[in-house]
Amino acid sequence: MQIYINVKAARQNGDNMDRFSIAVAQSGGPTAAVNSSLAGVFRAASLCPAIDNIYGAINGIEGVIGDELADLRRIITSDEDISLLKTTPSTLLGSCRYKLPPKEQSGNDYIKIVNTLDKHNIRALFYIGGSGSMDAVVKLDEYFRAVGKDIRVIGIPKSSDNDIPVTDHCPGFGSAAKYAAASIQEITRDSRVYSTQSITVIETMGSRTGWLAASSCALHANGESAPHLIYIPEAGFSDEKYLHDTAEMIKHYRAVITAVSEGVCGSEISAAEHLERITAEKFGCKVRSVKLNVMQRCSSHISSLTDLDEAYDIGAAAIDAAKRGESGVMMAFRRIPGDQYRIEIFTEPAVNCVGRIKQFPAEWINEGKNGVTAEAVDYFLPLIKGEPVIRYENGIPVHFRATQ
Amino acid sequence: MQIYINVKAARQNGDNMDRFSIAVAQSGGPTAAVNSSLAGVFRAASLCPAIDNIYGAINGIEGVIGDELADLRRIITSDEDISLLKTTPSTLLGSCRYKLPPKEQSGNDYIKIVNTLDKHNIRALFYIGGSGSMDAVVKLDEYFRAVGKDIRVIGIPKSSDNDIPVTDHCPGFGSAAKYAAASIQEITRDSRVYSTQSITVIETMGSRTGWLAASSCALHANGESAPHLIYIPEAGFSDEKYLHDTAEMIKHYRAVITAVSEGVCGSEISAAEHLERITAEKFGCKVRSVKLNVMQRCSSHISSLTDLDEAYDIGAAAIDAAKRGESGVMMAFRRIPGDQYRIEIFTEPAVNCVGRIKQFPAEWINEGKNGVTAEAVDYFLPLIKGEPVIRYENGIPVHFRATQ
Repeated sequence: MQIYINVKAARQNGDNMDRFSIAVAQSGGPTAAVNSSLAGVFRAASLCPAIDNIYGAINGIEGVIGDELADLRRIITSDEDISLLKTTPSTLLGSCRYKLPPKEQSGNDYIKIVNTLDKHNIRALFYIGGSGSMDAVVKLDEYFRAVGKDIRVIGIPKSSDNDIPVTDHCPGFGSAAKYAAASIQEITRDSRVYSTQSITVIETMGSRTGWLAASSCALHANGESAPHLIYIPEAGFSDEKYLHDTAEMIKHYRAVITAVSEGVCGSEISAAEHLERITAEKFGCKVRSVKLNVMQRCSSHISSLTDLDEAYDIGAAAIDAAKRGESGVMMAFRRIPGDQYRIEIFTEPAVNCVGRIKQFPAEWINEGKNGVTAEAVDYFLPLIKGEPVIRYENGIPVHFRATQ
Repeated sequence: MQIYINVKAARQNGDNMDRFSIAVAQSGGPTAAVNSSLAGVFRAASLCPAIDNIYGAINGIEGVIGDELADLRRIITSDEDISLLKTTPSTLLGSCRYKLPPKEQSGNDYIKIVNTLDKHNIRALFYIGGSGSMDAVVKLDEYFRAVGKDIRVIGIPKSSDNDIPVTDHCPGFGSAAKYAAASIQEITRDSRVYSTQSITVIETMGSRTGWLAASSCALHANGESAPHLIYIPEAGFSDEKYLHDTAEMIKHYRAVITAVSEGVCGSEISAAEHLERITAEKFGCKVRSVKLNVMQRCSSHISSLTDLDEAYDIGAAAIDAAKRGESGVMMAFRRIPGDQYRIEIFTEPAVNCVGRIKQFPAEWINEGKNGVTAEAVDYFLPLIKGEPVIRYENGIPVHFRATQ
């Protein structure tokens, strides 16, 4: 079921189809690339003669249920708008955490959704979101098939945590990893200024998976010794082992830098605060903790061009998939083996992406369970490469704002 | 005592002086521009035929006391090195918080300092630091005069908090303000995605002064309504008034964004955590707090070109001041009145800069004590303008590293 991005072909083939409208929605937590996928969907759709209106549903599926649609052709009106949208963080269309009930329990939502889609002659719905959003893709596709509606539903993944299964990596992750690596490098410089011992614990996002903390190993490729320790949920964690590892690192480094996933001590305990406390108690030197917080997922000013371009491409490819008649699928990346980094885009039944998380591979965790292997560095490096051109006004990045 | 940056003149006039060496040191908390000032000192000195060796003292005055000097001509070896150093955060030479004792109490430090300087024929010492470091400039200058040593001591200001008196603004502040404004804008985008009410409290640095929190008003110049509330120590603060102001803002904004200085609730209480707690108790909606933390002072990847250039220029001008025979002075910026932003560099007796902090002007605080005036916006905007070219390798900014 592999497809390729083929915007020109989309334009030519469109003539063979009835004219219809489409809707696109964004769901789940924001990322720096989720608007780039929206831009890709919009651009590919706008080049397709068969597509009439391009609607943006406000606040994810809630906007479809409530018939709150924006006419995107009136909001995104130029190539410059598209370019600006690509580098604007978070979701232009808002988001939601609403979980569709099983169709047996409450048909009401589904009836409203069909009413909205019918009213606007919408025959394809593009849902940009995380694994939770893929659940909606599955349910809607099953419902439309059950009631005999030819409405195609395509999922477009996004996750700054990189935890969606099937796809090699998630749009939004590369930008988060780039911000984290750049910030950890800067904090490392900041931590080294004094002649006395210090320990800095930097907490990245990742409540269930350690991709973001692990990705800070990218600094090693540039000759940086930091981070000296990396802890992720997949490797297991104990205070004793952490304190032992830190004691070892103090022998070698005046300023020890440790990257930890927020979920490393479980969901109840703030990893940064807990580790700061036990480290200070044990070592009595200067200890501080820094949370990279939501800046990781929204810092478009230092986003990865590879990430933004791929996010755009996978959005555009979703239009092609719908035109080919696919539905109930999630778009995904596959890495093509070889020396050069290359990916292809394929589709996977969305049902295979729901209710599972992709963990950091056990074979990429080092023997000491406090770092990662060279294979992990090779995996991460291409994802953070490239810098988009950011437009500044008054010294501040310009964001796309809907003028409607 | 006004002087102008005149590197070419320095080269010509140098012939009239004996050959001598100089030393430069960095002190206090790091900033994104403190290496740019080092680059400016180095570059101007290297163009001056009278100057023999250019030493970098390791860890501030501690390096002079302990005769730990680096030969900067062997570390900074090309124009590319200078360019890279300008965009590398924190202090290449390390830093210290060591406070020189009064010379009456302990002459030992002073004797060691003179020994080091004499040993290396150092006749000028450049001290890049905050108001605490200017105390060392005063003491050393007084000591050298008292013992009949012709060793010139020049202070070069740096502060991400912008709290040094006399100078219009401090090198390092513009970059911190640019990072804060860009991050607050991104967090604002991130906060607006859901259809439900939320309140986000963003804590900036500034334990005693509110310059950084106040500078987030720059976003208003770009049409952003956020931050909706700004609290700084100079305006006074009470929980009651804060909760009242927030209740008002909720009427207008679904996602209320508030910027606060870390010192707004006093030095004992974390402003972010305290406000998050009382806000959640009062309003029961989604509340989160974000600390911009040390990233504010070290995020060179989004530094202000104006700031880096000015930091470089004021470092270069310090060489000129020493050549003119000045000592015991701090370099400073004066803003030239007029429509266009222009500054001049002058010198001020360092004694006038010690033991005082420059507070945010009362007349720039709005009537509600929860924001700032248009004059403040005009003050801040030029300081954050311009983006330096950042070199990337593997998707990560390249930092200057000493190869010695």
